[in-house]
Amino acid sequence: MAAYKDLSVEELTSLKADLEQRYAECKARGLSLNMARGKPSPAQLDLSMPMLDTVNSASVMKAEGGDDCRNYGVLEGLPEARKLMGDICGAAPENVLVFGNSSLNIMFDVVSHAWTHGVCGEEPWCYLDSVKFLCPVPGYDRHFGICEHFGIEMIPVPMNEDGPDMDLVEELVSNDDAIKGIWCVPKYANPTGISYSDEVVSRFAALKPAAEDFRIFWDNAYVVHHLYEEHVELLDILQASEAAGNLDRVYMFCSTSKITFGGAGLAAFAASAKNVEDIKVRMNFQTIGHDKINQLRHVRFLKDIDGVRQHMEKHAAIIRPKFEAVLDTLESELAEAKVGSWTKPRGGYFISFDALPGCAKAIVTKAKEAGVVMTGAGATYPYKNDPQDSNIRIAPTFPSPEELTQASEVFVLCVKLVSIDKILAERTS
Amino acid sequence: MAAYKDLSVEELTSLKADLEQRYAECKARGLSLNMARGKPSPAQLDLSMPMLDTVNSASVMKAEGGDDCRNYGVLEGLPEARKLMGDICGAAPENVLVFGNSSLNIMFDVVSHAWTHGVCGEEPWCYLDSVKFLCPVPGYDRHFGICEHFGIEMIPVPMNEDGPDMDLVEELVSNDDAIKGIWCVPKYANPTGISYSDEVVSRFAALKPAAEDFRIFWDNAYVVHHLYEEHVELLDILQASEAAGNLDRVYMFCSTSKITFGGAGLAAFAASAKNVEDIKVRMNFQTIGHDKINQLRHVRFLKDIDGVRQHMEKHAAIIRPKFEAVLDTLESELAEAKVGSWTKPRGGYFISFDALPGCAKAIVTKAKEAGVVMTGAGATYPYKNDPQDSNIRIAPTFPSPEELTQASEVFVLCVKLVSIDKILAERTS
Repeated sequence: MAAYKDLSVEELTSLKADLEQRYAECKARGLSLNMARGKPSPAQLDLSMPMLDTVNSASVMKAEGGDDCRNYGVLEGLPEARKLMGDICGAAPENVLVFGNSSLNIMFDVVSHAWTHGVCGEEPWCYLDSVKFLCPVPGYDRHFGICEHFGIEMIPVPMNEDGPDMDLVEELVSNDDAIKGIWCVPKYANPTGISYSDEVVSRFAALKPAAEDFRIFWDNAYVVHHLYEEHVELLDILQASEAAGNLDRVYMFCSTSKITFGGAGLAAFAASAKNVEDIKVRMNFQTIGHDKINQLRHVRFLKDIDGVRQHMEKHAAIIRPKFEAVLDTLESELAEAKVGSWTKPRGGYFISFDALPGCAKAIVTKAKEAGVVMTGAGATYPYKNDPQDSNIRIAPTFPSPEELTQASEVFVLCVKLVSIDKILAERTS
Repeated sequence: MAAYKDLSVEELTSLKADLEQRYAECKARGLSLNMARGKPSPAQLDLSMPMLDTVNSASVMKAEGGDDCRNYGVLEGLPEARKLMGDICGAAPENVLVFGNSSLNIMFDVVSHAWTHGVCGEEPWCYLDSVKFLCPVPGYDRHFGICEHFGIEMIPVPMNEDGPDMDLVEELVSNDDAIKGIWCVPKYANPTGISYSDEVVSRFAALKPAAEDFRIFWDNAYVVHHLYEEHVELLDILQASEAAGNLDRVYMFCSTSKITFGGAGLAAFAASAKNVEDIKVRMNFQTIGHDKINQLRHVRFLKDIDGVRQHMEKHAAIIRPKFEAVLDTLESELAEAKVGSWTKPRGGYFISFDALPGCAKAIVTKAKEAGVVMTGAGATYPYKNDPQDSNIRIAPTFPSPEELTQASEVFVLCVKLVSIDKILAERTS
């Protein structure tokens, strides 16, 4: 099989007829499959069911500090939970605040705090004429959603193999004091799966932004989410920024949503003492403390960073074959046709697929018509605007292996059909 | 024993010497007692320990809607949790959103949303020259804290026996469109324990504020928190405001923090469909959903409103004797001396004590020196400014009965000593 672009109109037309028939067959199956959201599968959630037994009616409910986990208080989180979350994301316990079940909620609140009260005493963003964030693309739609909600102007920055285009990042932040932040998923990024190189992390740590209240939003969502034995280890941004004299530049976020339960995990914020104090100003008025019983559950179940690593190996054993099944299908069905490229992640939750320019929306629509829901095309770009209409995020974790096989088949079929249409349209125009 | 004000200087001086000696004895005991915060006691928390067994590793984790409670999603809360919380606070399930563990957090977020995005599309409060809230006094310090954090001007409104002074409330809100809200704890209020009469609730429902985005912040914190068999039943503000054509005027809040666990309960927001949609705009960007496993635990443990009522009777059995012990001590030690007045609540978490004017701070300081921590004097007023320096909030629920006896003794001793000092100072000035 040759690359589609090298086929004649006749060959393409004949191939299309064949593919159309297979597509019709797929459609007739009445599938209802979903590769849209990065959700853990039931089998993954089952791994953490024993956690629910670690706190029961016979349990001692006191934490290390002597506090009764059932009652009000302990704003920063239990000492042992701060240590656990700090060990996961690479921060000292005293630099960690443990929140409720959602790191997205922390990110939203941190932006909201900057909006209403400013960052560490700087001018509140609501009073500024313009607030901008850099958004490495493709990226995480919910990061972009927060910006959109607050009316923050988003500037896309291209992703390279080793992280965002740092030449551009440095140039932009040093010349425009309206740029207040950048969204980063530094390890096994959403959706590309790439991890930032030491050089990229070092350049982040050394940034000299024009805005004093510029912060790097370092969403360490996949910090221990390796697919293979060989782990990517990121340079420690908190240490690196301290060494570079930019101690207060980084807000770090992480959660156990994809370690224990998507809906009932722990989320944490880690940053310099000054940043932690600034966020605690808000927390002091906002809550008397987050759910400490769930913190206790997590500490008793996961125990320590070694416990986390062992637990994550079980996740990897479940989802690695799923990633590989999708990648195998992409490889066997699309590689020679040369109608798309894709990432081969070593961790995280996503495969990023780049279709021929102008094809992503049509592919997602076509897949949906055959009962396979993909993340909306464009979702990985600010304002849902992928200028190339090329990127599609594939989330292989939730479906069962059988569903995934079916869904992948439908997907590659749609890619082929839409690509042929595009090539044919170019030939005849 | 006569009223102190009727005693001679000699009698007062002699009495004082005696009291000083008893105070010194108390101090020598090295007490460390706390009547400051409205926290459930360990015995109360023990009542809900069986809840921890309702969800375990063998449990079915699907909710009524078929959702896996362990995974992401279900922004509004589980259907059965919305029903339970709605039944508790008197709202239809579809008007209820279930959040995390803190109703304070919801209130903060609702104000924050108004600040950054406005109420239901009205001008965001951050762009207004002036934003004011009415604050019935004495009231809840953390309500006032939210206002202070956002720089909202607080206007105190006196509390009568049956609720806030509604003549004043009506006059103020109808003439000043900068007044955007009023904080209400309508049942067993914090700290007075009074409940709003039907007339007061009706007048709230019928308010005609100058500001379109004026909201009544109806903090139903003690809605099922009766101390006695005879329950206070409040007029339904959501129904009443709908009947009065002011459907969108009310934000209602409640939580199970003082039903199950102070630190690991459920909190809920209830309001009109329009208000719920407006808050969901924010939630859509802020989180993928709150902790549904904890919602499941609550529903399985409390079951329904009858289950809640039975459970609350157990709480009452524990805390009613504590309230009565404090009230008995106040009565026996202070009634004849006429150096203070206090409320006799039928529910809730607090007794409100009014000392002779100018004495509250000195009493709290003196109690602290003898090892008894009270809520800071002034805390029940905006800006911590009690113009009479008279009100002290007593929280009898947390200490053990023995501790409470000791703490009450110290407290009345301090009231007597400070009152005598004041009376003597007046005589000699």
